[in-house]
Amino acid sequence: MVVVMKASAGQQEIAALVRRFEEMGLEVGVTNGIGCTILGLVGDTASLDSGKISMEPSVERVMRVQEPYKKANRKFHPEDTQIVVGNAKIGAGAFSVIAGPCSVESEEQVTGIARDAKKAGATLLRGGAFKPRTSPYSFQGMGVEGLDLLLHAKQATGLPIVSEIMSPRMVDEFEQKVDVVQVGARNMQNFDLLKEVGRMSKPILLKRGLSNSYEEWIMSAEYIMSEGNENVILCERGIRTFETYTRNTLDVSAIPAIKKMSHLPVIIDPSHAAGMSWMVEPLAMAAIAAGADGLMIEVHNDPPNAKCDGQQSLTPAQFGTLMEKVEALVALSGKELIK
Amino acid sequence: MVVVMKASAGQQEIAALVRRFEEMGLEVGVTNGIGCTILGLVGDTASLDSGKISMEPSVERVMRVQEPYKKANRKFHPEDTQIVVGNAKIGAGAFSVIAGPCSVESEEQVTGIARDAKKAGATLLRGGAFKPRTSPYSFQGMGVEGLDLLLHAKQATGLPIVSEIMSPRMVDEFEQKVDVVQVGARNMQNFDLLKEVGRMSKPILLKRGLSNSYEEWIMSAEYIMSEGNENVILCERGIRTFETYTRNTLDVSAIPAIKKMSHLPVIIDPSHAAGMSWMVEPLAMAAIAAGADGLMIEVHNDPPNAKCDGQQSLTPAQFGTLMEKVEALVALSGKELIK
Amino acid sequence: MVVVMKASAGQQEIAALVRRFEEMGLEVGVTNGIGCTILGLVGDTASLDSGKISMEPSVERVMRVQEPYKKANRKFHPEDTQIVVGNAKIGAGAFSVIAGPCSVESEEQVTGIARDAKKAGATLLRGGAFKPRTSPYSFQGMGVEGLDLLLHAKQATGLPIVSEIMSPRMVDEFEQKVDVVQVGARNMQNFDLLKEVGRMSKPILLKRGLSNSYEEWIMSAEYIMSEGNENVILCERGIRTFETYTRNTLDVSAIPAIKKMSHLPVIIDPSHAAGMSWMVEPLAMAAIAAGADGLMIEVHNDPPNAKCDGQQSLTPAQFGTLMEKVEALVALSGKELIK
Amino acid sequence: MVVVMKASAGQQEIAALVRRFEEMGLEVGVTNGIGCTILGLVGDTASLDSGKISMEPSVERVMRVQEPYKKANRKFHPEDTQIVVGNAKIGAGAFSVIAGPCSVESEEQVTGIARDAKKAGATLLRGGAFKPRTSPYSFQGMGVEGLDLLLHAKQATGLPIVSEIMSPRMVDEFEQKVDVVQVGARNMQNFDLLKEVGRMSKPILLKRGLSNSYEEWIMSAEYIMSEGNENVILCERGIRTFETYTRNTLDVSAIPAIKKMSHLPVIIDPSHAAGMSWMVEPLAMAAIAAGADGLMIEVHNDPPNAKCDGQQSLTPAQFGTLMEKVEALVALSGKELIK
Repeated sequence: MVVVMKASAGQQEIAALVRRFEEMGLEVGVTNGIGCTILGLVGDTASLDSGKISMEPSVERVMRVQEPYKKANRKFHPEDTQIVVGNAKIGAGAFSVIAGPCSVESEEQVTGIARDAKKAGATLLRGGAFKPRTSPYSFQGMGVEGLDLLLHAKQATGLPIVSEIMSPRMVDEFEQKVDVVQVGARNMQNFDLLKEVGRMSKPILLKRGLSNSYEEWIMSAEYIMSEGNENVILCERGIRTFETYTRNTLDVSAIPAIKKMSHLPVIIDPSHAAGMSWMVEPLAMAAIAAGADGLMIEVHNDPPNAKCDGQQSLTPAQFGTLMEKVEALVALSGKELIK
Repeated sequence: MVVVMKASAGQQEIAALVRRFEEMGLEVGVTNGIGCTILGLVGDTASLDSGKISMEPSVERVMRVQEPYKKANRKFHPEDTQIVVGNAKIGAGAFSVIAGPCSVESEEQVTGIARDAKKAGATLLRGGAFKPRTSPYSFQGMGVEGLDLLLHAKQATGLPIVSEIMSPRMVDEFEQKVDVVQVGARNMQNFDLLKEVGRMSKPILLKRGLSNSYEEWIMSAEYIMSEGNENVILCERGIRTFETYTRNTLDVSAIPAIKKMSHLPVIIDPSHAAGMSWMVEPLAMAAIAAGADGLMIEVHNDPPNAKCDGQQSLTPAQFGTLMEKVEALVALSGKELIK
Repeated sequence: MVVVMKASAGQQEIAALVRRFEEMGLEVGVTNGIGCTILGLVGDTASLDSGKISMEPSVERVMRVQEPYKKANRKFHPEDTQIVVGNAKIGAGAFSVIAGPCSVESEEQVTGIARDAKKAGATLLRGGAFKPRTSPYSFQGMGVEGLDLLLHAKQATGLPIVSEIMSPRMVDEFEQKVDVVQVGARNMQNFDLLKEVGRMSKPILLKRGLSNSYEEWIMSAEYIMSEGNENVILCERGIRTFETYTRNTLDVSAIPAIKKMSHLPVIIDPSHAAGMSWMVEPLAMAAIAAGADGLMIEVHNDPPNAKCDGQQSLTPAQFGTLMEKVEALVALSGKELIK
Repeated sequence: MVVVMKASAGQQEIAALVRRFEEMGLEVGVTNGIGCTILGLVGDTASLDSGKISMEPSVERVMRVQEPYKKANRKFHPEDTQIVVGNAKIGAGAFSVIAGPCSVESEEQVTGIARDAKKAGATLLRGGAFKPRTSPYSFQGMGVEGLDLLLHAKQATGLPIVSEIMSPRMVDEFEQKVDVVQVGARNMQNFDLLKEVGRMSKPILLKRGLSNSYEEWIMSAEYIMSEGNENVILCERGIRTFETYTRNTLDVSAIPAIKKMSHLPVIIDPSHAAGMSWMVEPLAMAAIAAGADGLMIEVHNDPPNAKCDGQQSLTPAQFGTLMEKVEALVALSGKELIK
């Protein structure tokens, strides 16, 4: 941590502050100059509250030097983490595709889509049973019944299930029925929920919040990991910017950035980023080329009659075409497409 | 709703679509021109899914004309709503100030601050018992014990309590102990929690999310209201922009905008917007001048040793000075300061 | 400046870098710790290129400690700057209002508005002769003829003129005819134009760019000042955010922030920020309450037939009503309204 | 265009407005419903000012249906535009790479880099002679001398030159010496400059502004095209968002979006987007995969000693490695890499 003293800070004030830091067991280096004194602090600074120090009357500014995350930090865990679920592998050179409808609507619908998705090369089935909707008057999902329909589809196809949890009271239900538990963008900083899923045995797919920084996103993973669940998949799904043409703005830089900061796998959801089915393919391709470890794609048998997000869903046929291109590009990028 | 047809749409396709809308009981007006046909739909369009219609092969674009919110809509409820809690009144010409520490730390701390805040003119006591923190390694609040200390402070001063709920499992606890239940910015679209607090008997203070539009914010109020709880106070606390000098960017335009869109009261939290105590006063003044119905201010007896957000907290003395200015400006703006 | 070394940096590399900095005449303090070495640099670090240093193989990160601006920096010029033009005074306790049409349309129009504006209390006349329009097919302003019509209005009323320059080739024309030269938001980083107006003898009104930080804005003022023209007025007119309800988002925090960073006066243009005439009053009030040194308001005799931005223009009558409220609030805030 | 009437609008007011539109030669369709009347306007609505109409007392809202751009609009020009300069071809299936230093520093520097870039497969040489810098105290470029050094490099290698113009007074100089004239992000809405380069005979490379929408960007191209110069290349270089880890946020969605809206070619500058050399490769790959028509890459012989932007520059060796990957991916994506 670096503490910049005010020009008006006297030598006594500086000495007192230095002493306080040293008493905390920190190394303190002092650089004195005309009108500016800088303190460099080294040691276990994670316990220091920079806000508090910045309130000292003699302090002008405090700058953190070390990352506030540990378990998710690549520095302390240089090897890529790989998440294995059923046949799917995500990370450390393995690339998997999650596909399925925005929301579960019926047994035929979800099982049919699961069959088509599997045939095309998906290894995980997504499907929403509890749906976060902007309006209370929109379809809110089938609830527990939706989870049961996903289980049927799993029995029929062998594809493990990814589904979004919205409430801590559903933890037991999800622990029993779901293979990968998704925390949605709007709940990325629902810390109560993060702690709960951190005590589950299932991998967590953590979507990035609409306007959350890379560091905040990793800190939310850290919440989960600090409770004991180290199987976290990060999923970029577009951020909110001034541009309104697309539903969100896909931030592909997140892929190389997160890979530098953390050892956790990163996948991309081009469907929510674009909000329009015709843009899913170019964004999916961009994600692979930038180094993503997987994709999450919305597929629906009848998009114009989907109960939610039909306009961004691919038909099974379109998904099949996409997967051929995915396969070629994953191969070129040196990763293994798990099928 | 307005449906713009593709230039390539044939007369038959247009006619079929018109028929479908008419069968739904809607009035449909057709404007034909070279290379462009526009359908105007009037009637109960709330049940129409614009995403679905936009997927029709002959449709280029769909534009909503009516607001998706009802209970919170000023059009259907022209009178200002006023929330009354203890002596405090918020809205419809009444202005109240909520003050207190970021987090409850001890009985003396919170009761002392409550006494000072009341003396200076606050009519509600805020205090965090459950704290949403970016890091799992930061102080997470005293929990239920914190609520009990707030109750002590209430008994000592008569000030009703505002505190943040983070989990649906805490609903009973908050129903018994808290007078105004706060939903934080990070939970603005935690729809599960919104539904829960919508079934409570206590007024809800709903903070705007970091990057949520006015409409999304009102839709979250609509979630609460649609469950039966129509006592919602909206609180702007700064949005996330590219500017990093301030913690967030206070959006004062939210005040006149929300007042035009909705009948619900709007208050401002300048402490979280600025993130720096020296900026609280100018932002508080701006809020009053722009027409806010109240303020929420962080006050701490010992900011440099506060367990959270000390750098944005006022001392009781600073709060006292601020309240004198608040009083003068509220008077000038034609509202009544409740004390 | 602070240089954080990589964990892998060897003692020899560190020593070599320290020597290099010392040879540049800088004081260097070294803080050594396990896995982290921090160098604090004090002295004339303005000439150091942090980007370059960050490229050293042994360096992890470089953090600037001092502001990159000098002439605009309050640290080196603690007194408020006041700009005086005709009767108008802006800054250092004096508050002036600039009013007039978005664009000059005819002699009667601009002289009539000038008379009304003066009567209501404005001390400067704004009017666009060269208009920056998003579309090449929109009205582009009357050009030099517009400046001449402004001069007529000045002769009729005594109000000095504020008008926007868009090209360095117009510098002589503006030097002769205009009293305050406006640089628009879209040209805030048109560095060629900044240097040109920096050599003019007239005060410059520098609008903040749509997505420029406070520091970038002050650096653009520094461009003007570094060429010799120290009379710069900063004007906040709304920034671009995700919110689309308003044309832009007025950032009132800019007022206290700029006043802390710089000695230059700050005024607010609520008309462009809101983009809707009914929102001009609350935003103008907020600006005064937050400490602004002046306002810039669009006034038009016939808004529905204005050649540009009619929807955000006040009528002379509305402006008169606004000025009464402005007067009361400026008085309360302890500034002097210049009339 | 669609005009939504206020609920309070009387039949007479509506009829009067309809008559006015019809007198302008427009088709007007009226949809009447309880509490809502919608007018659909078809015809030459480009001349209508939506702001003006929205000010009619009986009008609630006006929505544009047609794009405000013509010459750049794919609807009126379905074929891809291809720009040909020297050996380079950009667009319509041809992919070219522009490479070179951020700024020209010496003859050896720029000619050396040009040789290396050509060998690796670049077909255009970039180099800044006039540099837009945030600080007036930073290196501002070599000016006209820099253009002459670029000409030397062109003579030595045959590579045509891309360089940024910052002032309308430099138009003649650039017309003579430069092959592709770049308009920088900060000048994207410097309309005076756009008109000037619209009268040049050389292709214009128009960078997207830091916070400009796709539509505004295309409207700036329209400014150039409306003056007669239809050879415009659009270049995405990252937008400004809340995320500060990267210098800017590369918006890959711009590629498919612009290709749908316009027939103009789109290239990507991953160097400025990332601001860090190690991130250039993944972003370049993402751009190709998303369908870009070319890349613009900063290459420097000695990045740590570059006069500007060294931290985002590749060495010639790194550029060579990148070009091998570029070649493979362009081939896979079905475009032809021009070498």
